Amino acid sequence: MSRIIILAEKDLRKLVPLDGEAVACVEDAFHALATKPVAMPPILRLDIPEHRGEVDVKTAYVPGIEGFAIKISPGFFDNPKIGLPSTNGMMVLLSSRTGLVQALLLDNGYLTDVRTAAAGAVAAKHLSRPNSAVAAIFGAGMQARLQLEALALVRPIREARIWARDLGKAKTVAAELTIRLGITVRAEVDPEIAVAGADIVVTTTPSEIPILKAEWLQPGQHVTAMGSDAEHKNEIDPAAIAKADVYVADSLKQTRRLGELHHAVKAGLISPDAEFSELGQVIAGIRPGRENTGQITLADLTGTGIQDTAIATLAFARADAAGAGTAFES
Amino acid sequence: MSRIIILAEKDLRKLVPLDGEAVACVEDAFHALATKPVAMPPILRLDIPEHRGEVDVKTAYVPGIEGFAIKISPGFFDNPKIGLPSTNGMMVLLSSRTGLVQALLLDNGYLTDVRTAAAGAVAAKHLSRPNSAVAAIFGAGMQARLQLEALALVRPIREARIWARDLGKAKTVAAELTIRLGITVRAEVDPEIAVAGADIVVTTTPSEIPILKAEWLQPGQHVTAMGSDAEHKNEIDPAAIAKADVYVADSLKQTRRLGELHHAVKAGLISPDAEFSELGQVIAGIRPGRENTGQITLADLTGTGIQDTAIATLAFARADAAGAGTAFES
Repeated sequence: MSRIIILAEKDLRKLVPLDGEAVACVEDAFHALATKPVAMPPILRLDIPEHRGEVDVKTAYVPGIEGFAIKISPGFFDNPKIGLPSTNGMMVLLSSRTGLVQALLLDNGYLTDVRTAAAGAVAAKHLSRPNSAVAAIFGAGMQARLQLEALALVRPIREARIWARDLGKAKTVAAELTIRLGITVRAEVDPEIAVAGADIVVTTTPSEIPILKAEWLQPGQHVTAMGSDAEHKNEIDPAAIAKADVYVADSLKQTRRLGELHHAVKAGLISPDAEFSELGQVIAGIRPGRENTGQITLADLTGTGIQDTAIATLAFARADAAGAGTAFES
Repeated sequence: MSRIIILAEKDLRKLVPLDGEAVACVEDAFHALATKPVAMPPILRLDIPEHRGEVDVKTAYVPGIEGFAIKISPGFFDNPKIGLPSTNGMMVLLSSRTGLVQALLLDNGYLTDVRTAAAGAVAAKHLSRPNSAVAAIFGAGMQARLQLEALALVRPIREARIWARDLGKAKTVAAELTIRLGITVRAEVDPEIAVAGADIVVTTTPSEIPILKAEWLQPGQHVTAMGSDAEHKNEIDPAAIAKADVYVADSLKQTRRLGELHHAVKAGLISPDAEFSELGQVIAGIRPGRENTGQITLADLTGTGIQDTAIATLAFARADAAGAGTAFES
């Protein structure tokens, strides 16, 4: 018999808002990835093409952390036709000492949303110019909203432009975020205009054709590409990877296979054995990030198991302190 | 909001005993693996050497089955020192159509025990001589018990010998099984004597040094090796693989990496590109199994995600029919 705490999405939304502490816990996780013998096996991926479905399972163990998460992320892209969200999922938190299941985090993907947005904030904190005030967001989904919210936690954002293929959706998001963040957010019909003069550009789409062109990028800009988490996805013009002065991956193992980097290598614009920094190395000061205000920096985020372990551990600690959740014996 | 059924170990023990139906569902799964476009990605494995821990995550999708399981199997080998079992774990059953979590099977490893034993029965059913009556079991753990019980479901077993490094444990298991199965079961101190005259030999240990020697094998015997599920484990003398007339893997992809086969290849006794049958192909009649009563057959079982999907689907269907489990909204 063992005792398991079950946390529902509504519990987790209360316990783990997207805030400075969520950003700090993801930042610490990347730091650990660069400085400790973290174990982060390759993502397990199952495809169910008959139903336009895919499932990713991610995990990572960080020495010194009492628990580790195994995250199950399904994406079933015909779900909206029957009124269901495309993505959902859950996390299982296990004890690092005994392997016993400690908690089931039935978040329907909420914690993934938070840790993904938090990584965007971490990238901007370490790579964008400190006075970055204007953001351009590509996409109009949940991450478009959360990435801008996350940027506002680490940079003095006062203006944002939203570009999406569907202008109507961009307008809805812009209206929402204007109220939520109390800054000027407008929908922009032309992606090039959205990027012009922006200090930070974040791409949050599942695009398979580049939507951000290299020639639009201006000195001093920081780009975070967080939409690609699979081989066929590609948001960034491969030439933009070559043009960037500083390219930083969340995990090079992953971006060489799944991220924007692999498209640039495939296009012959980047050598397959070119060396790059990882975000954790920049955080830890092991490798340089931005070195001056004129550089173009680019963060390629594919989503890592350490982020899941970090956010699940935070959620469990807070649930424990608050006595939240339902205990279950099995 | 979605509705999830949570099943505890005690529910699952009632719902899914090791019986003919459990064997049939695993047999069907192997049949599907050979005849349908099953998706079974490589096992995700995380090692936590600090705590002598390891976690395997397995999954498989079988077209036509409504759900698929993701199984989390931790093994933490210092647990017995603090009074906990080494292995435990759980399964998550997701809808193949929507990816929504349907059920959490908090089985603490029980369903893995059942589907592993069931695979032993399936192997014996398709590879051992139909009149097999004498079994030799190596090991004295849970699988030693269950493998013999499983054999008795498919073959007219009337005598069994148990050999284990610890004779005391072998005696305990023998006494238990004598009562449980109503047949003669005795502990045997000499493994060679245990094997002599046995129709079926099943090895169920985590041994890293071969415990079954090639020269002990006699014409007509069937061997199932089910203990090895990791690179360093090795129960069968590599020469026995070469000596066997028929070698059958549960999954060749896995046995070439994790099973007994890979030790035989490493020892240079089997060519790395030698062709072999898989259990599902034998079941489906696509490739030959045993062709006469004089052959030595050997089944190399590493444990597959399709078995997990099969047993989880059976458990969920029975729980649904019985109204068992606890519903949870999240």
